[in-house]
Amino acid sequence: VTEPLCVHDYELLARERLDPGCWAYYAGGSGDEWTLRENRAAFARWVLRPRVLVDVGEVSTATTVLGQPLSLPLVVAPVAYLRMAHPEGEVELARAAAAAGTIYTLSTMATATPAEVAGAVPGANRWFQLYVFKDEGLTRSVVEQAREAGYSALVLTVDTPRLGNREGQVRAGFNVQFGVPALGAIADAKLAPQDHFRELVAGATTWRDLEWIAELAQMPVIPKGIMTAEDALLAVEHGAAAVAVSNHGGRQLDGVAGALDALPEVVEAVAGRVEVLVDGGVRRGIDIVKALALGARAVLAGRAPVWGLAAGGSEGAARVLELLRAETELALALVGAASPDEVVRAHVGRT
Amino acid sequence: VTEPLCVHDYELLARERLDPGCWAYYAGGSGDEWTLRENRAAFARWVLRPRVLVDVGEVSTATTVLGQPLSLPLVVAPVAYLRMAHPEGEVELARAAAAAGTIYTLSTMATATPAEVAGAVPGANRWFQLYVFKDEGLTRSVVEQAREAGYSALVLTVDTPRLGNREGQVRAGFNVQFGVPALGAIADAKLAPQDHFRELVAGATTWRDLEWIAELAQMPVIPKGIMTAEDALLAVEHGAAAVAVSNHGGRQLDGVAGALDALPEVVEAVAGRVEVLVDGGVRRGIDIVKALALGARAVLAGRAPVWGLAAGGSEGAARVLELLRAETELALALVGAASPDEVVRAHVGRT
Amino acid sequence: VTEPLCVHDYELLARERLDPGCWAYYAGGSGDEWTLRENRAAFARWVLRPRVLVDVGEVSTATTVLGQPLSLPLVVAPVAYLRMAHPEGEVELARAAAAAGTIYTLSTMATATPAEVAGAVPGANRWFQLYVFKDEGLTRSVVEQAREAGYSALVLTVDTPRLGNREGQVRAGFNVQFGVPALGAIADAKLAPQDHFRELVAGATTWRDLEWIAELAQMPVIPKGIMTAEDALLAVEHGAAAVAVSNHGGRQLDGVAGALDALPEVVEAVAGRVEVLVDGGVRRGIDIVKALALGARAVLAGRAPVWGLAAGGSEGAARVLELLRAETELALALVGAASPDEVVRAHVGRT
Amino acid sequence: VTEPLCVHDYELLARERLDPGCWAYYAGGSGDEWTLRENRAAFARWVLRPRVLVDVGEVSTATTVLGQPLSLPLVVAPVAYLRMAHPEGEVELARAAAAAGTIYTLSTMATATPAEVAGAVPGANRWFQLYVFKDEGLTRSVVEQAREAGYSALVLTVDTPRLGNREGQVRAGFNVQFGVPALGAIADAKLAPQDHFRELVAGATTWRDLEWIAELAQMPVIPKGIMTAEDALLAVEHGAAAVAVSNHGGRQLDGVAGALDALPEVVEAVAGRVEVLVDGGVRRGIDIVKALALGARAVLAGRAPVWGLAAGGSEGAARVLELLRAETELALALVGAASPDEVVRAHVGRT
Repeated sequence: VTEPLCVHDYELLARERLDPGCWAYYAGGSGDEWTLRENRAAFARWVLRPRVLVDVGEVSTATTVLGQPLSLPLVVAPVAYLRMAHPEGEVELARAAAAAGTIYTLSTMATATPAEVAGAVPGANRWFQLYVFKDEGLTRSVVEQAREAGYSALVLTVDTPRLGNREGQVRAGFNVQFGVPALGAIADAKLAPQDHFRELVAGATTWRDLEWIAELAQMPVIPKGIMTAEDALLAVEHGAAAVAVSNHGGRQLDGVAGALDALPEVVEAVAGRVEVLVDGGVRRGIDIVKALALGARAVLAGRAPVWGLAAGGSEGAARVLELLRAETELALALVGAASPDEVVRAHVGRT
Repeated sequence: VTEPLCVHDYELLARERLDPGCWAYYAGGSGDEWTLRENRAAFARWVLRPRVLVDVGEVSTATTVLGQPLSLPLVVAPVAYLRMAHPEGEVELARAAAAAGTIYTLSTMATATPAEVAGAVPGANRWFQLYVFKDEGLTRSVVEQAREAGYSALVLTVDTPRLGNREGQVRAGFNVQFGVPALGAIADAKLAPQDHFRELVAGATTWRDLEWIAELAQMPVIPKGIMTAEDALLAVEHGAAAVAVSNHGGRQLDGVAGALDALPEVVEAVAGRVEVLVDGGVRRGIDIVKALALGARAVLAGRAPVWGLAAGGSEGAARVLELLRAETELALALVGAASPDEVVRAHVGRT
Repeated sequence: VTEPLCVHDYELLARERLDPGCWAYYAGGSGDEWTLRENRAAFARWVLRPRVLVDVGEVSTATTVLGQPLSLPLVVAPVAYLRMAHPEGEVELARAAAAAGTIYTLSTMATATPAEVAGAVPGANRWFQLYVFKDEGLTRSVVEQAREAGYSALVLTVDTPRLGNREGQVRAGFNVQFGVPALGAIADAKLAPQDHFRELVAGATTWRDLEWIAELAQMPVIPKGIMTAEDALLAVEHGAAAVAVSNHGGRQLDGVAGALDALPEVVEAVAGRVEVLVDGGVRRGIDIVKALALGARAVLAGRAPVWGLAAGGSEGAARVLELLRAETELALALVGAASPDEVVRAHVGRT
Repeated sequence: VTEPLCVHDYELLARERLDPGCWAYYAGGSGDEWTLRENRAAFARWVLRPRVLVDVGEVSTATTVLGQPLSLPLVVAPVAYLRMAHPEGEVELARAAAAAGTIYTLSTMATATPAEVAGAVPGANRWFQLYVFKDEGLTRSVVEQAREAGYSALVLTVDTPRLGNREGQVRAGFNVQFGVPALGAIADAKLAPQDHFRELVAGATTWRDLEWIAELAQMPVIPKGIMTAEDALLAVEHGAAAVAVSNHGGRQLDGVAGALDALPEVVEAVAGRVEVLVDGGVRRGIDIVKALALGARAVLAGRAPVWGLAAGGSEGAARVLELLRAETELALALVGAASPDEVVRAHVGRT
């Protein structure tokens, strides 16, 4: 038995340490989990085209998203209820992201408030993920908490007018044991996540809402959950600062394409007007380089750092991020790019 | 062990409860069962393209077929010999369809007469499936029974000039223990289904027969078993009210494409002149939405409600239909369509 | 346990009854047996497009090849050393073919002479398969035996300048226990088949040889083993009466396409000037109908009747042929063709 | 149990005889070993198109590379640390190559010096593989050793600015037990191969280095590790004598295409100006013929002869080479080519 060498190893450790319900929550998808599997399968449909005898004596994985510096082209994606994975949950994962030199995205459905996370990891750059609620006051309250705590971008989840049918959670008897303090009184209710959503989330949210939310938030807004060129164009028209191609990790609508397969049409549609992120199935540095080559500015990764968090707290999560950074550095070197900016479309082809 | 969460769960329950011969009859296909598997595989070749930030605060699955209202875009397909699945067979399934707000299609080879089913579930909308017999008088008798009992459409099975070679039934020692009362004297014969067919069914039926049958039936006729653009055009020419794309659930000619893969060419051929239904492999709400996106007005589903019937009678079948309705509603919401009518071709793409 | 219902069942019976070496000889292919598997896989790449409401009240599977009548579009392919499968080997299989109303092709490497087979089944139509030997006199002797015994076509194997590397035979310890009486003195040598070939077969045979052989044989010559349009054209130019698309059942060059996948280019190249046969992987009536739709006049089938022979002698082989005829009849009916001549290219499409 | 019949058999023997760490070193790839598997899978995407009735009475597998004669279109690829596989390692494998009439390529990371190998197998033709070191003096020293020992071509590995992440080696606890005498003082250090590389290899090597190395070496230089048309063109421009398409046997960047799939674009780009070699996944004579048909002059094979070396020393390796030669001869005969020069692009097609 060696120490964990890659994200897959951390996934196995997390599976051992989490109770089956929590594992089902984090690892599972919706319906028949076809899209969950497609997220991984999509990466295997694209091959890297390595260029050789390029000077890669010095390789840096550092880049920026929205002008904000990152040590690698990866932002920690929002994941809910992290106290299930670790007693200090979101705070611990935010520490890891800061230690790794990248951005942590706090979920609306976090078990710590935006202020708590900000206070625990001062000086770090952070994003905040937003669900829009039926109760506009509640939405405003949450956005204001994020703004006041100095979050630097708003990741607006747009693929969840309702929660996907995550049957694996039901079969595993999953129940959230934690409240959501950012939601105030709701925090005490300890509702199952389905119940939170049925009661709270606004299915009627539209592109117009993006505009008042952006104005209220006074920070860049990144709609997350775009899977089509059509919606990418609408996002640009409605003032999105970037778009995140995502199928919610296979947790919302099953039967949707793997995220990487949707990336090219989105990149083509936005035509450089905004940055594009992508989310779903990232487990290796080569996945990140494929995403860069297809036009992503960076990836979002949720499960990978959570496996590290579950396996070893902040240190485990930071090690996962460092593994991914080192793998990305190696992949850049071997593909013949001294930095993310040197990765171009010709670095990938179809199988 | 949780309660059944999806159609797959009901399938497992049905397998437990049915004797192996009946299971083989309902679940099996013909030959090497390649087409049976293709019916499912075809759905995985098409991906949903979800549109986001559409107002799906209110979603309705209701639609119409031939102008007749349905609570979801699904008609219960004809299945023979339902007393094998439940003591009250066809009547019980008709009750479930009515309770679910959709249409039940009674098979010619039913173990209850058209009148019995009509009498047991008054006020409900029903279709009748017809096999054309060598004995024209027998065909006329059956059509008249359906007409007099108030059935509102005739589903004319066109893919069964002979019965497919369903070897699984032979291997399982399957024998029908019930007669077919609609056929009168034949009802007592208790022939195996192959024998019913060899003796009764007219292999020489042609498109011209569709015309006198329609006139006799005085109701819309829907040829079921169309797998090509050529036949779709002939159906329209010969006065079909709608066409049903179907390979008879993989039970007739093995080696035929999955039904969903044949749908686009049929939809293109009929070019909106008649409605198109599709049948084969529907197990999930996302399957229904894919079919709608490819141009189907609704799907026909046989095995799914029969699994519910076998597992829990009328209540079980109604629960299967409600599960499929709820899944369809969720899929519509997540694809960004507030109703079946809002689903368009761009909601699907190829894998 | 039911009686055998299809060719697969006979294959299982044959496997039980043959000793492992003989099984390896008949069932195996060359190299990694990729082409052996592709022969079956190729059939699954083509789907039948059934036409409905065609008058198929009467369906006949009868056809002709080279103007010679057949009860079904299938000729029994040449297979060597049939006494390994049954004490009366070739004679017994010839009886089955005659009983089934089709043509038996006797192999050069048979364990009975052309005259013995002809004498045992008088009145039946027979073809003879020829390998060209280094010793021209030996070739002439064999052809003359076939001519004098009244064989009506010469199937000239063109894909065997050397024997394929059939490692499975070596691993199974296979050794032929029978001589080849048509070869005269050689018959006593009881060489392993590899040795027969190494010593006897002419690797230097070319298209010019086809001409003197045809003249000597005074019967139509059908080159068997054509896998390209280029060779199909050469065959026509050099006077072939028909061509047989074949990869020798996956026993010669591994890595070659499945035979059915090579059929379309050959059919296109010959453009109706000669008939086209195809050989490899036929196990079902639907396989035969797919081959017809792609332009074959008939299929050659070797292993399928040999499984019948091994399982039940002449009767078993005849039953396999009748099963295939009945399946073909059913497939014709369900595809909407009352005879092989009514099958057209539009009856198949790609998966 | 028969004697080994093919390379797969030798692979199994080698696996038995090598300790798990050495096995992991030779057999494994990097990352998830996707590219390792693709190297084999790529061969199955191309099918041979055999031509028949070509005179193949005499078939020769002999060819030339860079004008140097070879008994078959296969050069033994460089493999490091061969004393792990056999006490006499490189010398023993060089003997096998000479006995088989082909060229042995000695690795820079060999456990014998260029002079030792040359002295032990006098009169044989040999190539030398070069890694470029940070320390230019070390590079010069190694090149000079090769030049002075009469090596006839320099295989310049261009895909290894850093070593791939070969996790399988770490999991197996692999550690090199041998030094690299060509590197002089370093030879004593017995560093793990990763450490050799981290400390020694120049990630900053560029195309310009190819020029001074060629001048110093005074022999033809073959960049190995080209996977794109772009780099193939640069290689030609910078004076490469040939190019070797290779992904380093799946040991460098995982996620890269199978080598055979990259061959066509390289062949098209160089347009006959230099010869093209290909490396990765060769296990059968048909693989070699497919590579020839796609435009390779010859293949490089590393693992196959090493399995022979591990299983039976020089004799085992020579037998592997002879097996591949005999399989190539058979494949040439069956594809209708009397020599490698007669193989053309039309001898392969896509599956």
